[in-house]
Formats: sequence, C-alpha cells, structure tokens
Amino acid sequence: MKPAEGNATNHCICPRYKYAVQLLGKRWTGLILATLLHGPKRFGEITMAVEGLSDRMLSDRMRELEGEGIVERVVYPDIPVRVEYHLTDKGHNLEPVIEAIHQWAKQWIPSDSQIC
Amino acid sequence: MKPAEGNATNHCICPRYKYAVQLLGKRWTGLILATLLHGPKRFGEITMAVEGLSDRMLSDRMRELEGEGIVERVVYPDIPVRVEYHLTDKGHNLEPVIEAIHQWAKQWIPSDSQIC
Repeated sequence: MKPAEGNATNHCICPRYKYAVQLLGKRWTGLILATLLHGPKRFGEITMAVEGLSDRMLSDRMRELEGEGIVERVVYPDIPVRVEYHLTDKGHNLEPVIEAIHQWAKQWIPSDSQIC
Repeated sequence: MKPAEGNATNHCICPRYKYAVQLLGKRWTGLILATLLHGPKRFGEITMAVEGLSDRMLSDRMRELEGEGIVERVVYPDIPVRVEYHLTDKGHNLEPVIEAIHQWAKQWIPSDSQIC
C-alpha cells in the first residue's frame, strides 16, 4: 500500500533518543548528574547540593542510574566505611548534553526565573 | 561566618540550568522539540510523530512552550485556516542540546531499549 501523502513530514523519532530523553528528563536526574560531573560525591553531599531533593528520592534515582550504568557506587574500606558515587564513562559522556543545556540556559533563561 | 569545610565539594547548581532542566525534562517536551526541529508542523502532525501523545497533553505542552517563547503558533489565512507550530530562535537554539542527547543515545543506548 502506498503511504499517505500527508505523512511526508512525519519524521520518526529515534527510539534511542526517546529512551534517553525519558531517562534524563526524570525529575532530579539532570541536577544529580550536573552535581556528579564536578567529581565523586557522598550521598549527603548530593542532597546538600540539590535543594529540595529528599533522601528517599535520591535513593530511588541513584538505584536507577546505577541500573543504567551511568553511576557507580564505590565503597572504601575506611573506618567508618566511606561510600561515594561516581559517574561511569557512560555518565561522563553526558557532559556535552549538560554543557549544551547550560549554554542555552545562560543565553535564554533570565537569571531570576522560578519554575514550580 | 567561615563556610564549613565539608562544603568544599558542594558546588551550587546554576538556577538557570535548573530551570532549563525542569522545563526541558517535562514529559513529551524533548520529543515535541525534536519533531519541530525538522520544520513547522500542524497539531495533528505532531501527535502522529510522537507515539502515545494525546491531543490534550500536546495542547498543554504547546501552551507552555508558547508561554516560554520556544514555540510560535502561526495562523495562515487559507480556506480552511491553516495553523502551524514553529520553533522560535530560542527554540532553534535547543538544537545542540537535542543533538548532544542524540549522540549520547547512539553511543550508549541499545537499539532495543524500552522505557516505561
């Protein structure tokens, strides 16, 4: 069957892009990743850096990001035990995404913007 | 007062970045923008391109994106009237963000990934 002409401008969205957008767009994820780009962090350092992020929500997000291979939980056998969260290579490779959002925001978002 | 030493690694998140992440991370927004980057679209062409996106949700998102100055609704006085949605300059400037997500997804997301 011949495709309908009206579909000529109907570009298909790449399923990988769709997956990435849904993953990275989840509430808090972009902020957690921006925080970890500065270097490994302890759990409490992340909640401190991301205003409004609860322990429970961070815990959920970290489990998800670990499951996706974006974040790695590293346990150091100090006394007391020290646990830090690192970006993996897959996570570090998100730097151009985060940088591009930063650049756009710097150009287009007024400095006094508030979002609910 | 001297800042606590423990804050040495506590980088502040830029409020503009936070605003941009929250805006762009909303469900469907990244997919709608990717669709409009290919060129102006009618309402029905967008819902056709973005699987699962309802008329109601697209309507909400478009209102928000128009309010943010990212999308413009253009009415052509044809018979019947033709309405198309365009990206503004602010919207077109999101191309590096969308392109960076595409590149990352191409490298790191398996082609058979499904997200709920």
